[in-house]
Amino acid sequence: MRLVTYQSENGSRIAGVNAQGQLVDLNQADSTLPTCMKTLLAGGEKLLSQTADAINKGTGIDSSQVKLLAPIPNPQKVMCIGLNYADHAKESGVEPPEEPVLFNKFPTAVAAHEEDVILPSVSTQVDYEAELVVVIGKTCKQVSETDASSYVAGYCTGHDVSARDWQLNKPGKQWLSGKTFDGFAPYGPYLVTSDEVGDPGNLKVQLRLNGETMQDSTTQQLIFGIPELVSYLSQICTLLPGDIIFTGTPPGVGMARKPPVFLKPGDVCEVEIEKLGTLRNRFVAEERI
Amino acid sequence: MRLVTYQSENGSRIAGVNAQGQLVDLNQADSTLPTCMKTLLAGGEKLLSQTADAINKGTGIDSSQVKLLAPIPNPQKVMCIGLNYADHAKESGVEPPEEPVLFNKFPTAVAAHEEDVILPSVSTQVDYEAELVVVIGKTCKQVSETDASSYVAGYCTGHDVSARDWQLNKPGKQWLSGKTFDGFAPYGPYLVTSDEVGDPGNLKVQLRLNGETMQDSTTQQLIFGIPELVSYLSQICTLLPGDIIFTGTPPGVGMARKPPVFLKPGDVCEVEIEKLGTLRNRFVAEERI
Repeated sequence: MRLVTYQSENGSRIAGVNAQGQLVDLNQADSTLPTCMKTLLAGGEKLLSQTADAINKGTGIDSSQVKLLAPIPNPQKVMCIGLNYADHAKESGVEPPEEPVLFNKFPTAVAAHEEDVILPSVSTQVDYEAELVVVIGKTCKQVSETDASSYVAGYCTGHDVSARDWQLNKPGKQWLSGKTFDGFAPYGPYLVTSDEVGDPGNLKVQLRLNGETMQDSTTQQLIFGIPELVSYLSQICTLLPGDIIFTGTPPGVGMARKPPVFLKPGDVCEVEIEKLGTLRNRFVAEERI
Repeated sequence: MRLVTYQSENGSRIAGVNAQGQLVDLNQADSTLPTCMKTLLAGGEKLLSQTADAINKGTGIDSSQVKLLAPIPNPQKVMCIGLNYADHAKESGVEPPEEPVLFNKFPTAVAAHEEDVILPSVSTQVDYEAELVVVIGKTCKQVSETDASSYVAGYCTGHDVSARDWQLNKPGKQWLSGKTFDGFAPYGPYLVTSDEVGDPGNLKVQLRLNGETMQDSTTQQLIFGIPELVSYLSQICTLLPGDIIFTGTPPGVGMARKPPVFLKPGDVCEVEIEKLGTLRNRFVAEERI
């Protein structure tokens, strides 16, 4: 299934995409279904099976009137993995890590498909990174790699926007500041459920900047695959339904180019991941008060 | 005012401490008041003034039966500032930073006063850090230092628990992993409102390990004071009611001692901050399944 969260007159709601490509509001099709993606995911297989029925029997809504939000607009955790493609580690000038490199963004960084992303006036080095995003479906702690996949609800296309000057050149060398400006975590448009994706370790990943392909790889190149990441993270903290994991970016980022390429007002980035759809965001100048 | 969140039979509730030192359930005293601290803070001065009235007129509940939760059990952001006392930077072997060093913990790390904190079996270097915690009261973005204090709802006593082996010795050198094990952000027992604290830059801060004083300083030693921190963070991301900021620790941490002191099962840490009360947590061994 492909699921979305959208803005309705009555607040945010969730919908599925039916066989005709139309959006079906889940709660409208079946009033026992929730209006919030986290609640749906927390309901497990039972609610997901009910969701599939609702999408089949429900009536499509006028999608042209719909403003999409991120699939989970308010995840408790936006976890991110750094240097998870060997070639990207190389272009960044570091060795491939021996275990996953965890950092994060705050939930205020989440943005939707087609939402404009503001280029902060305090940065001159905003860069793009195409990434596969994992969505946690069930609460888990200390799960094995073997069991990890059963805790994954699905996947999304994601963009890990990074202000390199704030990420890399600040005292303490913590990446958070440069990764968590408002809007720096666009992802979507869909949450595609695991059953429809199959193997997440074999998906094409591309990023186009103003139509030009800048990143072109596949998740076969991931150093740490999805089960390893979920298992590793669950050793550190309890994972909750709706938590998301940005899994790292392939080579081709702007800072590694000669000369470097940084985003400027009017630029449009499209991230496309096989089976998950295309995420498009325009970058705009910040208007400070 | 001193405010708490506690576990009642009907879920989590909020209460204030009256002149007799008793807890007064706010919603019970005035049914138009919320049962959630974030909602109360988002209500601004009007709800806070109503809260003061409710505490005066309400009936105290039997505190011995009450299990406290953290003042905001589910902050959207747990922001942390590193190396914010000059002497602590020195004992950590680094120069005092030229601007605030931002890192964070996930909300799953939040723990309450008197809640046992689990020592992860995967770490052998869990360390203590006494810290003043700031609670954001109003949504803000890009506020000036001059205006910053008006966005602060109050303060709490906090403990930034750190697994040094995971904080400092992992590929990528990001501190998050070592800072965000479940339970590594105890704070409380109270949220003390700004009006009652006065100047947050002149409070004694102490940490006792099994009764022995290990850290003993004052917030006069902060490199970046509260207005600077709030203003700085609000340049990066939108701050929301209930977001919390751990403001850094003074000298005396375990890893800087010769020989180093790390926490072991049965240890009890008490963090005491002037006007804010004492936060006590016992550390226990992890029982893995």
